[in-house]
Amino acid sequence: MPAESNWPETVHRAIRHSLFAGGKRLRPILCMAAAEALGAPAGIALAPACGFELLHTYSLVHDDLPAMDDAPLRRGAPTSHVVFGEAVAILAGDALLTLGLAVLARHPPGERYAAAKLRVLAVLTDAIGSGGMIGGQVADLEAERREAPVGPASAEQLLVIHEAKTGRLFRAALAAGALLAFAPDAVLAKLDACGRALGLAFQIKDDLLDVEADAATLGKRAGSDSAAHKLTFPAVWGLDRSRAQLLERIQEAEEHARALPGGGGRLPDLARFVGDRQA
Amino acid sequence: MPAESNWPETVHRAIRHSLFAGGKRLRPILCMAAAEALGAPAGIALAPACGFELLHTYSLVHDDLPAMDDAPLRRGAPTSHVVFGEAVAILAGDALLTLGLAVLARHPPGERYAAAKLRVLAVLTDAIGSGGMIGGQVADLEAERREAPVGPASAEQLLVIHEAKTGRLFRAALAAGALLAFAPDAVLAKLDACGRALGLAFQIKDDLLDVEADAATLGKRAGSDSAAHKLTFPAVWGLDRSRAQLLERIQEAEEHARALPGGGGRLPDLARFVGDRQA
Repeated sequence: MPAESNWPETVHRAIRHSLFAGGKRLRPILCMAAAEALGAPAGIALAPACGFELLHTYSLVHDDLPAMDDAPLRRGAPTSHVVFGEAVAILAGDALLTLGLAVLARHPPGERYAAAKLRVLAVLTDAIGSGGMIGGQVADLEAERREAPVGPASAEQLLVIHEAKTGRLFRAALAAGALLAFAPDAVLAKLDACGRALGLAFQIKDDLLDVEADAATLGKRAGSDSAAHKLTFPAVWGLDRSRAQLLERIQEAEEHARALPGGGGRLPDLARFVGDRQA
Repeated sequence: MPAESNWPETVHRAIRHSLFAGGKRLRPILCMAAAEALGAPAGIALAPACGFELLHTYSLVHDDLPAMDDAPLRRGAPTSHVVFGEAVAILAGDALLTLGLAVLARHPPGERYAAAKLRVLAVLTDAIGSGGMIGGQVADLEAERREAPVGPASAEQLLVIHEAKTGRLFRAALAAGALLAFAPDAVLAKLDACGRALGLAFQIKDDLLDVEADAATLGKRAGSDSAAHKLTFPAVWGLDRSRAQLLERIQEAEEHARALPGGGGRLPDLARFVGDRQA
């Protein structure tokens, strides 16, 4: 990452503020775990994995903006627009998106990875484009502003939003690791099923934590989703049925991971971590 | 481009509103002109050229936001945030950036172009990243907010801003065309010198038009740059010396273009167009 002393200093300070505030680094870990499980040389996916964290951080910085979720706190620190103002926060998000894709176009270097990197970029830009992550954020905002009564009738819309907002980037991170390990299409499909269950489990857990945990543990405002009339699993299904669905999805993700060549490496453990985490 | 009826409809309407409001399509034209001048098969650069228009449009949508230039009018139509609200305008910009890079990763298809496309992406993401176009927008905003007296003392800062905000994307569009024509490095360097002069000429002309033309011709608010205390060529150098510099830059761009293999194809004509245009 460019140093804070590099021109333009404000944007680089803002980028580092959001990127180095902590976070679980789950997307890069999934990317590396997939690459290693499928036999890629150690460390080959490290730089591309970092690209996924840049892209995730871009989505947080823009989602937190006053015009969107208007969030004051993220990863235990004031959000980018609170510290640096809205203009710089928008530009820092733009720079993170650009740099994330740049990292994935450059790493790993060498002719040997050229075709794989272009496939990663194709899968990824579909995942984070208007039909993916961006679409999920729009649908999330629109559902919130509609303030329609929330219940089992909204279950399908909830799945669409969560799949687009969270699931697509999870799946792309796993796919990137597998593509850099030159995995065949059949393996990619199994891994994608694992990622789909994992992304959903992650989001159910996120929704549960928003209800159950406090801000100090979460690093962001607790209860903010329910306060904002957001479509969440607890709002649609209640706490008990949400917890039951979480366990089902974790088990499903674990089973898909174990069906991979070599038992999926660290992926089954990561699936359990997603279900057990406290923040 | 995704149809307006594709989910998420709001974002796709917003994308099309900005993209199809007209515009000179200068960056894609430069990309195609460079490819053709250097011997690429006809049409090979068409899709990548469109990628450059998506990226340019993303920068317009975000620069026009209330937190940035707060512009009401662009390409003769109300700006994205005026029509669709700030949240959708931010997301439409994000989607245009993502899609622009996606197009350049996908086109032209085929193994033969894999290495060239990755080089295009590397050059381009440098050009539009924090050290390029984004940095130029930050510096532009900061200069405006400083409201320091404007005069020849600001000449160097003016060049830095214009080079970053406009020049880098012009040069990347030319480089992309040349890379897809498999041009050698010596040719790329000559083309880059042409692009540098052309980008500066474009921006001097833009600054002059902001003073000289009316909103109906420009498709955006006239006089808005000087009203906003922006660093512009007329503000720093006055009208006459700005006009003289424009002519010098155009001539320089034309000479560099003519020095290319085959006399630079349509590039010398395009250089003159940049200086003569009325909007």
